[in-house]
Formats: sequence, C-alpha cells, structure tokens
Amino acid sequence: MYVIAVLKRKHAYDQNMQESKPITRLFSENGLKRNKTIELGSGPAHKLRSVLRAQTGDEITLFNAQDGEWRAVLDSIGKNKASATCQNQLRTPRPEPGPWLAFAPLKKDRLDQIVEKAVELGAERLIPVITARTENRRVKIERLYQQVIDAAEQCERLSVPLVDEPIPLSKLALVWPKDRTLFVGAERRDAKPLVSQAANTPPPHGILVGPEGGFEAQELDAVLKLTISTPVNLGPRILRAETAAIAALAVLQAQAGDWRN
Amino acid sequence: MYVIAVLKRKHAYDQNMQESKPITRLFSENGLKRNKTIELGSGPAHKLRSVLRAQTGDEITLFNAQDGEWRAVLDSIGKNKASATCQNQLRTPRPEPGPWLAFAPLKKDRLDQIVEKAVELGAERLIPVITARTENRRVKIERLYQQVIDAAEQCERLSVPLVDEPIPLSKLALVWPKDRTLFVGAERRDAKPLVSQAANTPPPHGILVGPEGGFEAQELDAVLKLTISTPVNLGPRILRAETAAIAALAVLQAQAGDWRN
Repeated sequence: MYVIAVLKRKHAYDQNMQESKPITRLFSENGLKRNKTIELGSGPAHKLRSVLRAQTGDEITLFNAQDGEWRAVLDSIGKNKASATCQNQLRTPRPEPGPWLAFAPLKKDRLDQIVEKAVELGAERLIPVITARTENRRVKIERLYQQVIDAAEQCERLSVPLVDEPIPLSKLALVWPKDRTLFVGAERRDAKPLVSQAANTPPPHGILVGPEGGFEAQELDAVLKLTISTPVNLGPRILRAETAAIAALAVLQAQAGDWRN
Repeated sequence: MYVIAVLKRKHAYDQNMQESKPITRLFSENGLKRNKTIELGSGPAHKLRSVLRAQTGDEITLFNAQDGEWRAVLDSIGKNKASATCQNQLRTPRPEPGPWLAFAPLKKDRLDQIVEKAVELGAERLIPVITARTENRRVKIERLYQQVIDAAEQCERLSVPLVDEPIPLSKLALVWPKDRTLFVGAERRDAKPLVSQAANTPPPHGILVGPEGGFEAQELDAVLKLTISTPVNLGPRILRAETAAIAALAVLQAQAGDWRN
C-alpha cells in the first residue's frame, strides 16, 4: 500500500509541481509547530524505515486537523520510534466537514474497501452498527482506525475521520444529531433517488447501509420511523453492501458536498 | 461469492416477496424461450453443483439481454454440464443503456473491484486502456468477462457489459463514438465538477480513469485535445484509481443515468 502511495505521489509531484522527490505524508496526533520535534511511534517508524526506506535528513510532511500540514525533517529513525522536526507550515488547518457513514461491518476484504474508500470520499465519521444479519460482529476498531489513518495519509486529507465503537442499530438515534439527515439505503422499497433527496435536503448528511443480507423488515421499519431518517433509492440494481456505501458517499459529495467547491 | 449472493437473495425474497427458497440466477448465452432446454457449460454446472448444492428439479432463473429472464427447472446436473428447461418469462428484455468505462488495468484485487462494481453500477461497456504507467499489461479478458457475468447474475441485470480487448490509450478515440462524451478524471488540473458537467451534457456518457500513478502529462494532454473529451474534477482529495472509477460511475448514474428513473 505504501509503495503505491509513494509512487503515486512521486508521479503527481513530478508532473505538476516540478518536484522529483516523493514526499511522505504522516499523520501526527501530537501538536505541530515551527521547530518542534515530533516523536513518531512504532507504526510510522516502521513505515519510514522498512516500507519507504527513508533516511535521516529526508523531508516528510506531518499533518493533523488542528495544526494543518507541516514540512518536517527526519532527525532519527529507529526500529520502534522516529523523530522529525517541523520546519514550515504547508497548509493551514481548515474544517473538512463531510457525510457520516453508518455501516454494518462486512467480512475482511469488503470491510477494508468500505473504510479505505469512505476516507478517500471525505467521510467525517464512521459508525459501525450491528444489525440482525451483520456478519462481522467482532470488528477491531484499532485496526479500522489504522486503516483510516493510512487512507488519510494517502488521499491528502488533513482530518482523520472519527471511528466509533460498534453500536446496535437500535441505538443509532442516540448518537446521531437531530439536524443531520440520515439517508437510509432501502433496497426494494419505494423511495426517491438519493441525488434528488440530497439536493432537497440541506447538509449535514449521512448514509446508513445494511449488511450483505440486507436489513430485516422490522429493523428497517424501525429506522425509517426515526425523524432523522429519509429512505433513498440507490438505483435499479442490487448493490453489494460496500458498493452501496461507496456509491452513496460519492453521490452525496458530488451533489451536496465538497466535490462542488 | 456465490454463497453470499444466494444468502442475499434469499433474505431479499424472504422479506419482500414471501418466497423462502433462494432463486439462483444464471446468465445464458443461448436463446431462451418456453419449453426450450438450455445446455449449461462447466462454469454454471460447477456453481450449481458445488457452490449452490442445487438438485435436479430445483427452480433457477436464466437471463440474457435478448430474451429477458425466465424461470427454468433443472433437468440434470453433471460435473461439466447441466441443463434446464425454460418455463415462463419473468422479465421481458429491455434496453439497459449505461455509461462506458475506460480504465487502466490495476493489479489483481483492485482490478477485481473496478470490474465487479462497474457491473453493479450499470456500466454498459468496459474498455481496458494501456497507458504509460499501467501496472497490469497482461490482463486476461476471459477472466474479466467471467467476473462480469458473476456480477451481472448477482446484481439482477439482464445485460452483461461488453469487455473489450485492451487497447493503447492513443487508440481510444478510434473505438469511441463521436456522440458519447468522454469525461476524463484529470487530477490536479483545472476542471469543473463531474456532477455539473454530467448535468450539462446529454447522455450517452463515459469516463476515463488513469492508472495508480496517474497519466503522464503528455498523454493526458493528448486525450484532452480529443473532441469527445471533457475534463472533470472528482473532488479535492486524491482518489485511488479504482475509487475514482467507482465514484464516477455512481455520480453519472445518479445525475444522468438510471438512478433517476
């Protein structure tokens, strides 16, 4: 994954920014400011050393939502830790609002697809929900969060989406704000197209997508009774759960989100 | 894959159609009509026998774009062949026009994602194009075509998208009709959002997505000079190639395709 990320960035820089050196982007939970030395943990140290073959003195960038993105120079790279000192700010922090995604965790590969692509498509918060037919009830949030960070580094976000602990679908209304419309992918039910509902409903938005087997009729009925919910149609074909999540996020961003900016 | 497909369909039928038996859908290249016995080859025979554990006398459905979808009864299931006799027509044939996708073949898993999801999202034709940085230059069309059939069976299409032999990007204009707009995902270039371009340009449409490393500057310049081409913006983040393809097809269908019907 990292090799691809770096190649991609290298090409992009070569082509459009006349820089030939690939710039590694790393998320930092620590505050970033000029001349501050940032300690990087074992995850980033491993990426730098074994995957990217970075060396002391190499430039990287560090980012987070609070401090923006900073050019930094690697001071040390060890087996389990590394450090870099911030030089100058490349991007100032700015809000990155986006749709929320509530989804039933799928089995491994398809869960990975949802998480990675939701980050690329600008989801602001990921809420795993356990439904009657959810296949993966032991989802590891730490693993999801690491994937979220990897994807945020790759796609040039400043913010890293929140990842909630899984909750039962029946509790979703307790964590969902009253002013954020919850579009519900309601297969084989009468519902208007997502694109027109998104055009007619001011953001913020979110989308709920069921598990591979779909919702049970009574749990879908219960969700659709919530005042936050609006059923939506995702076209005439039967979509896999991860396709529905990815497609819905793309349509929300294109119609009512930051693809319009 | 098939186990999931059948479970999903079983649930869907249980819930909304008061049928409890899963109905297996199989694509048939042979013409379908009442009382006609259809010979099924080794691929479908394997699915029926080993994956679905179907038995003689079970009901299945057979479909293709020319004859629609038919209820059929399995007459025989052998190791390398099976046969079923058409009973009654469930869906009449109808046109399934959709966007075309021209894409640089990626490595295995990500190529699989593009193909499967393009079918689910209603792509009408898939055209692999070889670009300067294309990673997978030995793509096997037979394998892609089998995936396309599997996905079409799963998502309830009647038609199976065409899959072209790979062509060099420089030859794309030779196979692309003059009246079909080719939207080009042009990362880091000045372009209008896909959703507004799709709203302002009558279908038919198609989308061209580059390889993981992006297009080389001169090949992108050459494509954008074609009269069929319109550059489009796919949002402020850097999308992986397969995410760009999937997201663009979803937006095209939502804005100007059959998600609006």
